[in-house]
Amino acid sequence: MSAKNSQKAPSKSAKAASAKVPDAELIGITTQKEADFSNWYQQVLTKGDMLEYYDISGCYILKPWSYGIWEKVQDWFNIKIKSIDVENCYFPMFVSSKVLEREKDHIEGFAPEVAWVTKAGKTELEEHIAIRPTSETVMYPYYAKWIRSHRDLPLKLNQWNSVVRWEFKHPQPFLRTREFLWQEGHTAHVSQENAEEEVLQILEWYAGVYSELLAIPTIKGRKTEKEKFAGGLFTTTCEGYIPTTGRGIQGATSHCLGQNFSKMFNIVVEDPSWKEGDPEEAKKLFVWQNSWGLSTRVIGVMTMIHGDNKGLVIPPRVAQYQVVIVPCGLTAKTTEEQRKKLLEGIENIATTLSEAGIRVKADTRDTYSPGYKFNDWELKGVPVRLEFGPKDMEKKQVFSARRDTGVKAGIPLDGLAEKVQTLLDTIQKDLYDRAKKAYDEHIIIVKKWEDFTPALNDKNVILMPHCDNEECEDEVKERSKGRKDDDAPEDAKAPSMGAKSLCIPFDQPKGDDAIIPGTTKCPQCGENAKHYTLFGRSY
Amino acid sequence: MSAKNSQKAPSKSAKAASAKVPDAELIGITTQKEADFSNWYQQVLTKGDMLEYYDISGCYILKPWSYGIWEKVQDWFNIKIKSIDVENCYFPMFVSSKVLEREKDHIEGFAPEVAWVTKAGKTELEEHIAIRPTSETVMYPYYAKWIRSHRDLPLKLNQWNSVVRWEFKHPQPFLRTREFLWQEGHTAHVSQENAEEEVLQILEWYAGVYSELLAIPTIKGRKTEKEKFAGGLFTTTCEGYIPTTGRGIQGATSHCLGQNFSKMFNIVVEDPSWKEGDPEEAKKLFVWQNSWGLSTRVIGVMTMIHGDNKGLVIPPRVAQYQVVIVPCGLTAKTTEEQRKKLLEGIENIATTLSEAGIRVKADTRDTYSPGYKFNDWELKGVPVRLEFGPKDMEKKQVFSARRDTGVKAGIPLDGLAEKVQTLLDTIQKDLYDRAKKAYDEHIIIVKKWEDFTPALNDKNVILMPHCDNEECEDEVKERSKGRKDDDAPEDAKAPSMGAKSLCIPFDQPKGDDAIIPGTTKCPQCGENAKHYTLFGRSY
Repeated sequence: MSAKNSQKAPSKSAKAASAKVPDAELIGITTQKEADFSNWYQQVLTKGDMLEYYDISGCYILKPWSYGIWEKVQDWFNIKIKSIDVENCYFPMFVSSKVLEREKDHIEGFAPEVAWVTKAGKTELEEHIAIRPTSETVMYPYYAKWIRSHRDLPLKLNQWNSVVRWEFKHPQPFLRTREFLWQEGHTAHVSQENAEEEVLQILEWYAGVYSELLAIPTIKGRKTEKEKFAGGLFTTTCEGYIPTTGRGIQGATSHCLGQNFSKMFNIVVEDPSWKEGDPEEAKKLFVWQNSWGLSTRVIGVMTMIHGDNKGLVIPPRVAQYQVVIVPCGLTAKTTEEQRKKLLEGIENIATTLSEAGIRVKADTRDTYSPGYKFNDWELKGVPVRLEFGPKDMEKKQVFSARRDTGVKAGIPLDGLAEKVQTLLDTIQKDLYDRAKKAYDEHIIIVKKWEDFTPALNDKNVILMPHCDNEECEDEVKERSKGRKDDDAPEDAKAPSMGAKSLCIPFDQPKGDDAIIPGTTKCPQCGENAKHYTLFGRSY
Repeated sequence: MSAKNSQKAPSKSAKAASAKVPDAELIGITTQKEADFSNWYQQVLTKGDMLEYYDISGCYILKPWSYGIWEKVQDWFNIKIKSIDVENCYFPMFVSSKVLEREKDHIEGFAPEVAWVTKAGKTELEEHIAIRPTSETVMYPYYAKWIRSHRDLPLKLNQWNSVVRWEFKHPQPFLRTREFLWQEGHTAHVSQENAEEEVLQILEWYAGVYSELLAIPTIKGRKTEKEKFAGGLFTTTCEGYIPTTGRGIQGATSHCLGQNFSKMFNIVVEDPSWKEGDPEEAKKLFVWQNSWGLSTRVIGVMTMIHGDNKGLVIPPRVAQYQVVIVPCGLTAKTTEEQRKKLLEGIENIATTLSEAGIRVKADTRDTYSPGYKFNDWELKGVPVRLEFGPKDMEKKQVFSARRDTGVKAGIPLDGLAEKVQTLLDTIQKDLYDRAKKAYDEHIIIVKKWEDFTPALNDKNVILMPHCDNEECEDEVKERSKGRKDDDAPEDAKAPSMGAKSLCIPFDQPKGDDAIIPGTTKCPQCGENAKHYTLFGRSY
């Protein structure tokens, strides 16, 4: 098996055929993840075939390699939400200015980023039309029309679409883009209790997209008043962590809107619990609403967490191909008959795996060397590579290489599918466990303010008892900007941004660390602490 | 079974609870399909819960009842295209003006309808940005980048997205809307032969969406030069027919773009058949391209063809619910125990059908009478209604009613799932057969020009030997405007538009009707006829 471990340059014929391609693009990632994360991220996405930069800033092309991951997220999440009778639908991307601006707090949050259509062909439009930045104000006038009785509740709609937020900050693929794909669920309920139950159920599934599909741990919690969704009652979130930069990242948010929008849009029913004799005004029940969204950002988070210096590392459950088979050990001396036999053997392996439900690709391109193919599929992050050569055929085995660890092992052809599936499950679990360990080791409980910024600079997120005041959050951010230890030699590029509150985790420190009401103080301002809040530099 | 055949008003309790709803909205369609088709279409869509009108003209809300049909089309078509290695992806909705305008013929076709974003927040954009009316010019600059060798071919990408064409003509739900959902496939091939093979394969599947899923016959053919896609080489199409109006309707189009776009965008590879000694310029091979699209228009066509004066009629294969079960025969005398037993029985039936893969809904709402529910589900077009009452329970049977024919019959509970499936298959087939018969009866071969407009006015589409000249097509349209027989009493609202060429059918009249080259003349202009062209008033 001559090709094993080799990272050969493209074979002669491959080189000749791809003469037009500059060498620099054929080879792998040229930056270390730890050395220049931003450049690494850009390279791993483009060379890993996930994404292409577009000629309009802040817009990107999702190539099949990333869009396929999104399709898997869609399939999984659709099954979940359909199980609680959420229905998919489609609302227009356009919203008139008067409808968009109906809810003041809400629009304030989005107004600076709204893209406006003012012209069609050569005709100036009489009224300018916005492209939805999110669909609350698009949908709720119709909820008011459709919901006429408590028997029309709950109303649970979802759409998979794209929204536009014309940010002027530095764009970043998947994380901050001017157009992005997401789902947005919008539901209406008869009671706060029903609404809240759903908010948490959805959050659980969002965390599930991360943990079960993408092998990423998150911390679930509630956003502070300062960070919650504009116009809503409260926001729940699952927060991830990027070890390389030590920054937190919002995973997805599930909002309880309360009755704020229903009052604004007059979404009202007769209270089913109203009885003759109750005050007349008690008859009117404004519905309780939720909205919740998960975007293609998940793909960016996955890339940042699992990727390494060889390229992407894609968790098996979302990988387009879970296994790639590469024919090896073919030389100039190999007869046509031997070659044919080997390729048949590979076809058989592919069929066996495919029939067992494993997504497999046999890379039988004859113009590339095995070494080139190894690099190529490592760059693209396929979880398992199987090598198969004449000697393997004799021994009735394949040779496997894990993308995540590089660990190699022979696997007998007998019972292959089962063993490969076990290997894929192990990889999925190991990816999660490693990410979990990295997260856990970087959650630091801070009880004295002077420990805060140093801990932050050490790439941690911080659990700090907090007073829950917005001004104090502003102070935390201001005071944690830059480095306290400017003389420190390492990592000149440490982010200078201040820490934001990421969430108030549902799972609060217990035992000795537990908040004692009236006694535990907020280290930043000295007021009584209400609970631990998770702080961090963030995306 | 007291409720059988009854079309009762809502029961007392239902009436009380829905006091807010104006009576007019509770009852069914108030117009006859034959009497006022346009009003009927609007009512059947809104009352059948498919669609809601939106406050921006030409934009509509696709409610779950219609979006679910689209999801079924997506699932079916995705499997087909993935079988030939088409991959899904996502390109931005925005396109810069300079890229949009690169291909002149193409943009000429779309320019008057392009929506322009000129502002973000309060900032005027330096360059105005178009919303894609279709994605040829969005995608092909990247095809030029990605396709570097013939080994990168074929490249086959598809996206499910929405596009915007700001038409100023009278909008019509699903048929002519300013934003609509579709899929657009864009592929590149090494040879004309490969490209053409795919064009026809895709067309076959488009016709399959209509025939297999929507129970609609279409005629496959090629568009004339006048009607082909702007900038392409040739366009293939499947053309439907709306019996009520006698108008043709374009189903979906699959275009061979030839090398026109590849020359414009410089999508070029080294010809693999080039040999040393061949002329140097023969080395350069511009790729052969296709694009093909199918939109939510299919839902409109389905509605127009199958719907009747009671509302929607949805073919089983795309119906969200294929079967609805309505408890019947409950009276004031029914004991709570009997009631409970009946509902359990219904639950069992639902489970049995559901486990057999039938999409079933048990309508156990206790605030509505059976008669109200019958109307409701008929309006929404559910293919089969099953009624189940105490007497049915005794007889171990259910009572079925077909939505399409109204035919009623008992079905024993023993072997129910299989019998219901057979019934659904029969309905699917019968719907197709009826639509096919209606189409076939209205395809008229016309060989003398004086027969043309009268045949058109009799709600036919017309097969006429044609010379293939664009000017002649213009003449056909002009001369077939309005009615020749203005004194005719019937159908004052007959459309006055002229006939367009719908397609040149692949399946040409044979035998006595066959074109004799050099002998058969075009009845309109007297020139030699090349083939039969299908003409009709159209949408």
